[in-house]
Amino acid sequence: MNATAPPHQVFIGTFIHSKALDDLEYLHGTAVFVDGPTGKIVAVEGVDGHSGRLDETFTKLGWNPAEAGDKGKDVNFFFPGFIDTHIHASQYPNVGIFGKSTLLAWLDTYTFPLEAGLGRDLAKARRVYGRCVRRTLSHGTTTAAYYATIDVAATNLLLDICLARGQRALVGRVCMDEERTCPAWYKDESPSQTLSRTRECVAHARRRDPEGHIVRAIVTPRFAPSCTPASMRALGDLAREEGLAVQTHVSENKGEIDLVREMFPAESGGGRGYAGVYDAFGLLGERTILAHGVHLGEGEAELLRDRGAKVSHCPCSNSALASGAARVRWLLEKGVDVGLGTDVSGGYSPSVLEAARQASLVSRHVAMGGDEGAKLSVEEVLYLATRGGAKCVGLEGRVGGFEVGMEWDAQLVRLGGVGDGESEGEGESEDQGNVDVFGWESWEEMVAKWLFNGDDRNTKRVWVKGKLVHERA
Amino acid sequence: MNATAPPHQVFIGTFIHSKALDDLEYLHGTAVFVDGPTGKIVAVEGVDGHSGRLDETFTKLGWNPAEAGDKGKDVNFFFPGFIDTHIHASQYPNVGIFGKSTLLAWLDTYTFPLEAGLGRDLAKARRVYGRCVRRTLSHGTTTAAYYATIDVAATNLLLDICLARGQRALVGRVCMDEERTCPAWYKDESPSQTLSRTRECVAHARRRDPEGHIVRAIVTPRFAPSCTPASMRALGDLAREEGLAVQTHVSENKGEIDLVREMFPAESGGGRGYAGVYDAFGLLGERTILAHGVHLGEGEAELLRDRGAKVSHCPCSNSALASGAARVRWLLEKGVDVGLGTDVSGGYSPSVLEAARQASLVSRHVAMGGDEGAKLSVEEVLYLATRGGAKCVGLEGRVGGFEVGMEWDAQLVRLGGVGDGESEGEGESEDQGNVDVFGWESWEEMVAKWLFNGDDRNTKRVWVKGKLVHERA
Repeated sequence: MNATAPPHQVFIGTFIHSKALDDLEYLHGTAVFVDGPTGKIVAVEGVDGHSGRLDETFTKLGWNPAEAGDKGKDVNFFFPGFIDTHIHASQYPNVGIFGKSTLLAWLDTYTFPLEAGLGRDLAKARRVYGRCVRRTLSHGTTTAAYYATIDVAATNLLLDICLARGQRALVGRVCMDEERTCPAWYKDESPSQTLSRTRECVAHARRRDPEGHIVRAIVTPRFAPSCTPASMRALGDLAREEGLAVQTHVSENKGEIDLVREMFPAESGGGRGYAGVYDAFGLLGERTILAHGVHLGEGEAELLRDRGAKVSHCPCSNSALASGAARVRWLLEKGVDVGLGTDVSGGYSPSVLEAARQASLVSRHVAMGGDEGAKLSVEEVLYLATRGGAKCVGLEGRVGGFEVGMEWDAQLVRLGGVGDGESEGEGESEDQGNVDVFGWESWEEMVAKWLFNGDDRNTKRVWVKGKLVHERA
Repeated sequence: MNATAPPHQVFIGTFIHSKALDDLEYLHGTAVFVDGPTGKIVAVEGVDGHSGRLDETFTKLGWNPAEAGDKGKDVNFFFPGFIDTHIHASQYPNVGIFGKSTLLAWLDTYTFPLEAGLGRDLAKARRVYGRCVRRTLSHGTTTAAYYATIDVAATNLLLDICLARGQRALVGRVCMDEERTCPAWYKDESPSQTLSRTRECVAHARRRDPEGHIVRAIVTPRFAPSCTPASMRALGDLAREEGLAVQTHVSENKGEIDLVREMFPAESGGGRGYAGVYDAFGLLGERTILAHGVHLGEGEAELLRDRGAKVSHCPCSNSALASGAARVRWLLEKGVDVGLGTDVSGGYSPSVLEAARQASLVSRHVAMGGDEGAKLSVEEVLYLATRGGAKCVGLEGRVGGFEVGMEWDAQLVRLGGVGDGESEGEGESEDQGNVDVFGWESWEEMVAKWLFNGDDRNTKRVWVKGKLVHERA
């Protein structure tokens, strides 16, 4: 890290963040003070018409005045960084490529060959992971729960890239050792190899970032059908002993669910279902992120709630692979915490904003199926993308909002203003993206416009733990 | 128009276009010769390793050699311009703003107030329409079937802007005179006013572009519930007498369908349904574009097929307003022609590429509902966006593909190549959008990547009838 301590920073402008699921707070004319060494927010002050108050805080903190934020007809606001609770970095080159396949065929056709190739070729892995991390940062993702591949060196490389670029990450070596379902050319040889390889990655993460400030290892059994009972039990024990988070998939696709029932009749029986399998092997706890959960039953949802396990909702993937439409409202009402995942490359986009957009649309498909209350609002999907995600990745209270004591994981969003239409070339020199602000919109409407037409062009700066990690003109 | 005749042009490179619903053709190493005065394609020649052949064609045509297309690690190809078969230009400022509303409440809350405002304020109309046309061009829309507002002057202004910018357009003054459903402050006063105002717009279009090469008027009863029987009959007569196309909405939302049944018991009775109402008033013919058609019944689909009426599928809108999931495969198999519509601002995006993407996803929701065969492929949704749309707007055989005799309505698409990952800033200076080409992808895979992650940044140049109408660095 730097020899000199990072400077204190003060950000001034409009701050928008989720206070609760349906409560998006707008803090206008506000100053947020970020401590240099820790990256923590130490003060949040209203400053409109109170410049004296700002000076007071500077004096109190012993800081020199500084400023961020912009003026003009464009609209600027700070928003918490996005949290991607489920993304396969290794599959990044395949975004958008899925044909008409569904889960199990898609794995064999598109996914396993690509993942296997990264382990054999670290230069390729560097190119793929480097691009993936740069892209996700550019989309405002400040924390990601990554799946790499089964390869130790390539997985460690991904963690190193995240650390170097400053993106907060949980990085998982993918565990898969079940010979009935894994290709012979892409699997761990045995449960003991699964465990030893995973331990290597855990040790690497601890060497690189002992406190886990930015990057950590996460225990990652791919999904029940690709793991032997022995390896799942060993991984459950490892997670408990080492205090590690766990990520895997659950109940994504009906064929997959049938397969789990067939392979794990005892563990899934008696109404325990697919989720019950993970529970049987000690993999279901407060720090477990389960991707998808499209077809979970009542009993499974209650089990998740009782264990405190989280669900990563991946709407882009679920629609693209025709897996189903997850009932997010129902999960939330059951008391299960939910965040959003891009699920690259089952999902076609590395953007959490796109995942939030699709979460809104998919919830409407659930509503059209008969549950009118299923619709998620703009506020709710943005909650899932930030504070909801923070709960899933074990960073609740640390990131996801603008509160004293939280760390400065944030993005500066700019929406382009529309001119008077007379000057033809206006606004074309600086590409502000597809959101057009005419000037008469309410803040709620501008945020809705951002959700539905925004992209990486609107994310002008991104910070993690107070450090600027991405910037665009 | 220009005093000097426009020059002949030759475009060289890869051309991708739909030959049929499921047949996307890739023409590599090809030259397309476009006649200056007419904008028509006069020759399509394979030139790879046959530079002699190219010279021959130059000689035959008496043209001087010229060239378009680029080289490098980026991937370039020409694609037919997109056709938006349903878009409300007047609602453009509301894209993304719809809350949790459904159709009828959305009209009252968001739509009518905005539309009414444009008629009262032509400067505002210029700003809105100017932006909308520039945006749609930037997304590669070379032809659009626009709804304006009830106001004559503002509608004529939209047509003038399309003509000035060179976008092919059908421009409709919105007709609505039914006092039971239209706000008193936003309606025609009587059927005769509906007719006379519409005639004014038709006359204006004929003055501006007598042959209708670029812009035409289109008869536009808003939808059955907002029109009196007398005005619909008068508009049907007008369309027939003047040889005009017709556009309206059909069977978008269940509440709307109930309303139609209640208001038009005779016309919709006996299984004729909502579509039967238009048929009763002479509005259903080969040149009729019906937006949505989400809940059409068997008999209605057969009526559409028999009349040759077209359906504009608007997946973004249908999901956003929770209207339903249109059964496109079923319509196509019934023999009904289908194109894509953005339906701004029921739809949240002015991009036909986004509409194609959502058509793919929505078709998967239909498939998940039990009709496995409903899934639309990449090739199929791109067909709907181009050649399918051409059929809807009455330009079949004139635009939508690269064939001798067709007009050059095209876009140059560029997909960014990924570097080796070593140089940090690489590729950031020139923003090539979100599609990342690693170099090992097949052409089919690159097109899928474009469909799912492409945006206006990938559309580098746009031509209509041979004329360059949009360009970006």
